[in-house]
Amino acid sequence: MHLSEIVHPNQLHGLSISELKQIANQIREKHLDTVATSGGHLGPGLGVVELTLALYQTLDLDQDKVVWDVGHQAYPHKLITGRYERFHTLRQKDGVAGYLNRRESKFDHFGAGHASTSISSVLGMALARDAKGENFKTVAVIGDGAMTGGMALEAINHAGHLPHTRMLVILNDNDMSISPNVGAMSRYLNKMRLSPPIQFLSDNFEEQLKQLPFGEQVAPDLKRLKGGMKRLAVSKVGAVFEELGFTYIGPVDGHSLEELLATFKEAHLHEGPVLVHVATTKGKGYAIAEQDQVSYHAQSPFNLETGKAKPSNKPKPPSYSKVFAETLIKMAENDIRVVGITAAMATGTGLDKLQAKLPKQYIDVGIAEQHAVTLAAGMACEGMRPVVAIYSTFLQRGYDQIIHDVCIQNLPVFFCLDRAGIVGADGPTHQGMYDIAYLRCLPNMVMMAPKDEAELQQMLVTGINYTDGPIAMRYPRGSGLGVGLMEEGWEPLPIGKAETLRHGDDVLLLAYGTMVNLASQVADMLTEHGVRATVVNARFAKPLDTELIIPLAQKIGQVVTLEEGCLPGGFGSAVLEALMDHQVMAPVTRIGVPDQLVEHATPDQSKAELGLTPAQVAERVLGLLKQKPAPSYVS
Amino acid sequence: MHLSEIVHPNQLHGLSISELKQIANQIREKHLDTVATSGGHLGPGLGVVELTLALYQTLDLDQDKVVWDVGHQAYPHKLITGRYERFHTLRQKDGVAGYLNRRESKFDHFGAGHASTSISSVLGMALARDAKGENFKTVAVIGDGAMTGGMALEAINHAGHLPHTRMLVILNDNDMSISPNVGAMSRYLNKMRLSPPIQFLSDNFEEQLKQLPFGEQVAPDLKRLKGGMKRLAVSKVGAVFEELGFTYIGPVDGHSLEELLATFKEAHLHEGPVLVHVATTKGKGYAIAEQDQVSYHAQSPFNLETGKAKPSNKPKPPSYSKVFAETLIKMAENDIRVVGITAAMATGTGLDKLQAKLPKQYIDVGIAEQHAVTLAAGMACEGMRPVVAIYSTFLQRGYDQIIHDVCIQNLPVFFCLDRAGIVGADGPTHQGMYDIAYLRCLPNMVMMAPKDEAELQQMLVTGINYTDGPIAMRYPRGSGLGVGLMEEGWEPLPIGKAETLRHGDDVLLLAYGTMVNLASQVADMLTEHGVRATVVNARFAKPLDTELIIPLAQKIGQVVTLEEGCLPGGFGSAVLEALMDHQVMAPVTRIGVPDQLVEHATPDQSKAELGLTPAQVAERVLGLLKQKPAPSYVS
Repeated sequence: MHLSEIVHPNQLHGLSISELKQIANQIREKHLDTVATSGGHLGPGLGVVELTLALYQTLDLDQDKVVWDVGHQAYPHKLITGRYERFHTLRQKDGVAGYLNRRESKFDHFGAGHASTSISSVLGMALARDAKGENFKTVAVIGDGAMTGGMALEAINHAGHLPHTRMLVILNDNDMSISPNVGAMSRYLNKMRLSPPIQFLSDNFEEQLKQLPFGEQVAPDLKRLKGGMKRLAVSKVGAVFEELGFTYIGPVDGHSLEELLATFKEAHLHEGPVLVHVATTKGKGYAIAEQDQVSYHAQSPFNLETGKAKPSNKPKPPSYSKVFAETLIKMAENDIRVVGITAAMATGTGLDKLQAKLPKQYIDVGIAEQHAVTLAAGMACEGMRPVVAIYSTFLQRGYDQIIHDVCIQNLPVFFCLDRAGIVGADGPTHQGMYDIAYLRCLPNMVMMAPKDEAELQQMLVTGINYTDGPIAMRYPRGSGLGVGLMEEGWEPLPIGKAETLRHGDDVLLLAYGTMVNLASQVADMLTEHGVRATVVNARFAKPLDTELIIPLAQKIGQVVTLEEGCLPGGFGSAVLEALMDHQVMAPVTRIGVPDQLVEHATPDQSKAELGLTPAQVAERVLGLLKQKPAPSYVS
Repeated sequence: MHLSEIVHPNQLHGLSISELKQIANQIREKHLDTVATSGGHLGPGLGVVELTLALYQTLDLDQDKVVWDVGHQAYPHKLITGRYERFHTLRQKDGVAGYLNRRESKFDHFGAGHASTSISSVLGMALARDAKGENFKTVAVIGDGAMTGGMALEAINHAGHLPHTRMLVILNDNDMSISPNVGAMSRYLNKMRLSPPIQFLSDNFEEQLKQLPFGEQVAPDLKRLKGGMKRLAVSKVGAVFEELGFTYIGPVDGHSLEELLATFKEAHLHEGPVLVHVATTKGKGYAIAEQDQVSYHAQSPFNLETGKAKPSNKPKPPSYSKVFAETLIKMAENDIRVVGITAAMATGTGLDKLQAKLPKQYIDVGIAEQHAVTLAAGMACEGMRPVVAIYSTFLQRGYDQIIHDVCIQNLPVFFCLDRAGIVGADGPTHQGMYDIAYLRCLPNMVMMAPKDEAELQQMLVTGINYTDGPIAMRYPRGSGLGVGLMEEGWEPLPIGKAETLRHGDDVLLLAYGTMVNLASQVADMLTEHGVRATVVNARFAKPLDTELIIPLAQKIGQVVTLEEGCLPGGFGSAVLEALMDHQVMAPVTRIGVPDQLVEHATPDQSKAELGLTPAQVAERVLGLLKQKPAPSYVS
């Protein structure tokens, strides 16, 4: 049987080890070819090929449910659940998604994109099963990186308390998250990985212990210690999980189909929560990826033979992340109080450069956004200047900490929200859509967004120099505009002050962050139609520069707000609120991302679909100005 | 020395055990007297009197920093840090706060109100100390309940990875959160509590093991096992914490000053992270509270001799929480799919009643809001009807899960946000201010708020019957309006439909939730001034009933929105957005909670301060109608 013939994972039933190995090779080949062409996650999927095949051979996928944490390692799963033929459309608009998606396949039982959710969701399914008196298996496959996320530990704590709730957690331990893991849990798991099985000796050992001439006083302790030893022996070294109520089995060689099959079969026999510890190699089977696991966690299109990225058609300006990191390094060099903090996003945020240069001023807390925020709050209490670099969508994990630990105490923590706005191929779980709305409602918060990478430099200086309370800066994924950068001599921007880029009496374009450049392009297009626009770079969404904006709105009348974020509660709403609070009623058209999910596609495709290209916006503005009848005025 | 003479905790230095015991008695007396009079947290503080005194005798509080998790157990701390004289003002407006507050005292190093933040903040302080080359001690005191919160575990994971970062975590293990703890961690801690120290035997035991005639093959395993045994022995049974990089010391009798002093002194000698496990009794020293730890976690004013609540002046209508719980029970009785889920808020949300009646349809996950939300999402995948009852302010902890697991997948999870709006004496950390704004920006979310407890019943039915996606209901802390309740026969409300309560042409009062009753009162007052108001009970903040609202706004012109939540991005902004999107420009005055913190006070005091009493609102509306010149219209 060839991989292409598998349209249902139950077709794996009855295949021999050697047949499974052939399928494994075919999966790796297809996986590599596709990612080399389309880009996508590479190392995680290559590491779980055998795990996937062995697990699925022991399950009935018509009823059993497997949830893959994050889902970035689930390409092998996709290839044997009916998506082989469409797999070349990976991460493309209307194509196969880069993560799991309940709408894409009935075998995708729980979508994700953020880490650490699988144990909770699987426990929910297991409890539902038991409540309904049904009988199917539930399995969570979670990486060792994701295991440091607080919610995974919350779920372990709950599941370990339910000895009769059958569920299997497979710890896919590749000793990495995107970057090498940090944290005591990782060190602990690593210790286990390195421990050879000791079962065969421990039986003997226990027998020998029994021969000891222990007095009566010692006997009860021996008995208690024996419990501990037995766990150490039978479970090798899984004491933490055993103490927390799980039956621990492992470590198992994650690339031995034989070991995996035997282990999963045994695991399915247990009544309560079981954790199987599988040691895998990220990038397995592709030597280049095995050797550079960080770079090949995910890749843009590359040459399979050399592993090198395919040259893009034209050189791109440096990314916002890169400019952020390099400027931060310069500031940190001059100020020991400046510390960059991230939560397992070192490469993505560019903070790996800070780590390389100034390791003492760099902290990666692992996948633990909540802790990152409150750690920063604690540092701010002691006069440090913590710069918390977390993607917009992942900062959602630290929301309560932003409110409760930072805003309520008005502590000077500087949040740098990378990947704010439309992110492209990663899809809905990664779109940075909500941060303007979710931060704007919080007292004491200052919010800014640069119009280009040079202004990002200025805002970075602004944020680090601002000590009155919390401050946030959002900036997009990808390349800057290619404007000139300053090497030094930045001055902080005045808080809450906007910048007028051009004057025109027909329409006021109020733009925030990335949309400032678009507004300028729109203004150019409008000029061709004889319409003169005022373009304002808002710079700050909070506090809004009402001193500038209110008189302009009064004078010009027609107001258009532009933002790369959700419309409800966003920047446009801030403008609406301000105008109305100042009792100025001008027609305001809010342009941004409507109240809907944005699926995976290229950013340009998404923007076109959402009506956010310069031409579309220009057309809409022209329509507004021509509109008859005029908006209805009442009072 | 009498407690009243202590204005600085360093005055404890040099006091003898018997003197400390006297101070302990005086603290308990003052603590009990004050809480019996003012209401407040009782059991937690009484349990840590000796812990506080012993700890502070071993520290120099001019430089060392102690962070009390949640802060509800820190009344003894307050009494010896200069707040004895003012302590009778506890939880009253402008009085001593019920939690810690950096603005209240220099000894309050990190404010809280939510659980599980202390290890993160203290680690931040410790890292800042080391970065600055300073040398002071940092201590987090955290309850066993708070230890189940994911962020505490994230912090343990990080701290355990930093062997040279000196910090002390004191686990105040009273075997309870507000209610009895759930979870494997609690069971594990309990097992440790019950273990007698075994140090004196283990040395002997190890010696005996050494005599065994082990062959070469067994020797390496013995060596490894010995490591495990030594931990079990030296650290008694703290293997989980030891494996995660902490030096574990305990359990210690939390009411023995001698043991505590000796232990803390030893703990301070360690270089890296240390966890001291202190076993305390909640309510210690007040027999009534020791026996009913749930009720006496926190209390309204009560008679010290009988422990009974002081009768209030007039009988109150049942609380929203009570009506919620009793109605939910009726629905759950008829539908096995209905499950009530909470996160250590069983008594507060009323779900303890569901537990008593239908234990299989009740889940308390412990202090673990993130897990609670995603567990519910998993259950919804399997056709269950999860009802997640969490306070508005604590649901902030599950924000990413609401977005990523529920809204993006459009799963029918029903969020019931208790304590939404102004909460009174608990202050800023507990005010339910942001939920309208933070939920309104999320795709697929439906949001409703009842005008009274009878409508809460209808909305509960509505939410449980709504299976198209997520839905949320917010309702306030405290008593309902005393309206008649239905015993059965509720019908779901049409989604997104508002209700017009009275008609009048002069002003449109659009109210959400608790503010509907206020709007009616305001309308009555306006009538006395010859002003006729239309009053609309919005019922839904999302989707907004634009079919009803837009024509009314057009007709009446003057619009006033009313909500008990933050103004930025809130219900009023939803109305602004809708009007503008429909190109209807009417003057809108948004009344709600301005963009500021709301300090502790009675709800009535807070409302008066915020301009939210009926008389204040009526006056403001009258002012709007009289206003000359009229708002400026531009276009």
